Amino acid sequence: MSEISKEKEKSILNAARKRFAHYGFSKVTMDEIAGDVEMGKASLYYYFPTKEDLFKAVVVQEQSEFVNNIESLLRKQISAAEKLNEYVEQRLKYFRDLVNLGALSVHSVFDIKSMFKKLFEDFEAQELILLGKIIEEGKSNGEFSNDLSKDFVKIFLHILQGLRFRVVKLLNEHKADEDTYKNLECEMKIATNYLIKGISCK
Amino acid sequence: MSEISKEKEKSILNAARKRFAHYGFSKVTMDEIAGDVEMGKASLYYYFPTKEDLFKAVVVQEQSEFVNNIESLLRKQISAAEKLNEYVEQRLKYFRDLVNLGALSVHSVFDIKSMFKKLFEDFEAQELILLGKIIEEGKSNGEFSNDLSKDFVKIFLHILQGLRFRVVKLLNEHKADEDTYKNLECEMKIATNYLIKGISCK
Repeated sequence: MSEISKEKEKSILNAARKRFAHYGFSKVTMDEIAGDVEMGKASLYYYFPTKEDLFKAVVVQEQSEFVNNIESLLRKQISAAEKLNEYVEQRLKYFRDLVNLGALSVHSVFDIKSMFKKLFEDFEAQELILLGKIIEEGKSNGEFSNDLSKDFVKIFLHILQGLRFRVVKLLNEHKADEDTYKNLECEMKIATNYLIKGISCK
Repeated sequence: MSEISKEKEKSILNAARKRFAHYGFSKVTMDEIAGDVEMGKASLYYYFPTKEDLFKAVVVQEQSEFVNNIESLLRKQISAAEKLNEYVEQRLKYFRDLVNLGALSVHSVFDIKSMFKKLFEDFEAQELILLGKIIEEGKSNGEFSNDLSKDFVKIFLHILQGLRFRVVKLLNEHKADEDTYKNLECEMKIATNYLIKGISCK
C-alpha cells in the first residue's frame, strides 16, 4: 500500500473510531464516515468493503494499541505486583475508551460479540499471555507464591471480566456515567490488591 | 390461613417450583400448575391471583431457605474462612437450583430482573448482611486483618456475582451443562481461597 493510501486508511480509521465510539456500531453509516474524511463512498468501499470490515479494523487497531502499551509496561523496572495493578488500570481505561462500548448497551455488545467472536477470543488469549508473563515474573523473583494454582491467571482475568460484565448488565441500555466507572475502577483495584496479597509470599 | 389452606399453598408452590425450574417462567401456564395439583383454575387464582404472584412466592421461598441455611452455617463451630468457603458453595448450589435459572437464558433473566427488581435487591442486601457477619467474626477472632477495606464485603459479593454473570452471558440462550457448573464452582473456590489469603492476618 502506498504512503498516500496508508494515510487515507489512517484517517478513515480515526473518523470511524470517533463515530462508532459516539453513536455505537448500528447507528453509524458508511455515508457519514465518507463525509467525515471528504471521500466518495466508492473510494471508502475500496478500503473497507463493508461497515463490519471497518469496525473490525478499528477494534483490531485498538487491541494492538493496548497490547503494545502492556508490552511497554512489562519492560518497566517495577515489581510484578505494581505491573499487575497497572495492567488492571490500563485494561479498564482500554474498555472505557473502546469503540464498541461507546454505546454501552448489553444488546449491542451481544450483537457485536456474535459478529466478532473470534476477535474477542483472540484478545482474551493475548490477555492471558500478558497476565501470565507478569505472574511468572512475580513467581521467579520471589514475590508470588511458587505453588500458585495453574488456573490463577485465567481466574484473575475472569474476575476482571465479571466485575465489568456485572456493571454492563445492570446498566442495561444506559450509558455508563462517570460515577459508575469510578466505582468499577475502585472495585477492581481493591479486588486486585487483596488477590495480590493472597498470592504473595508471606 | 387454615391448615388445609397452608397445605394446599405448599403443594402449589412445590408444583410451580418444578415447572418453572424445568421450563422457565414464560413457558409455564397457570392451567398446567392447576392440573399438577388437581385443582380448578379458579381455586388456584384464589391463592395466587397472577402467575407473577406465584413465581414471586416461589422465589421468596427459595431465598428464605437459602438465608436459613446460611444462618445455620453461621452458628457452626468452624473458622470464618471455612464459613466463607461454605457460603460460596451453598450460594452456587442455590443459584443452580433456583427456579428462575431453570431456563438459564440471559433474556429471561433480564425479564425477570425487571419484574422482580426489588426482590433481587432485597436478596442482595441480605447477602451483604450475612457475608458481613462472617467477615466481622473473622476480624474479631483474629483470622482476618483488622484494617480490611470497608468495601470488601460488597466487592467479594460482586466478584461472585460477576463470575456467574460472565458465564450466564457467554451461555447466551443455552442452558448450563454439568461441566460449566463444575468449572464455575472451581473458579469461585480458587478466587475465594486467594481472597481469604489476601485478607488473613500474616
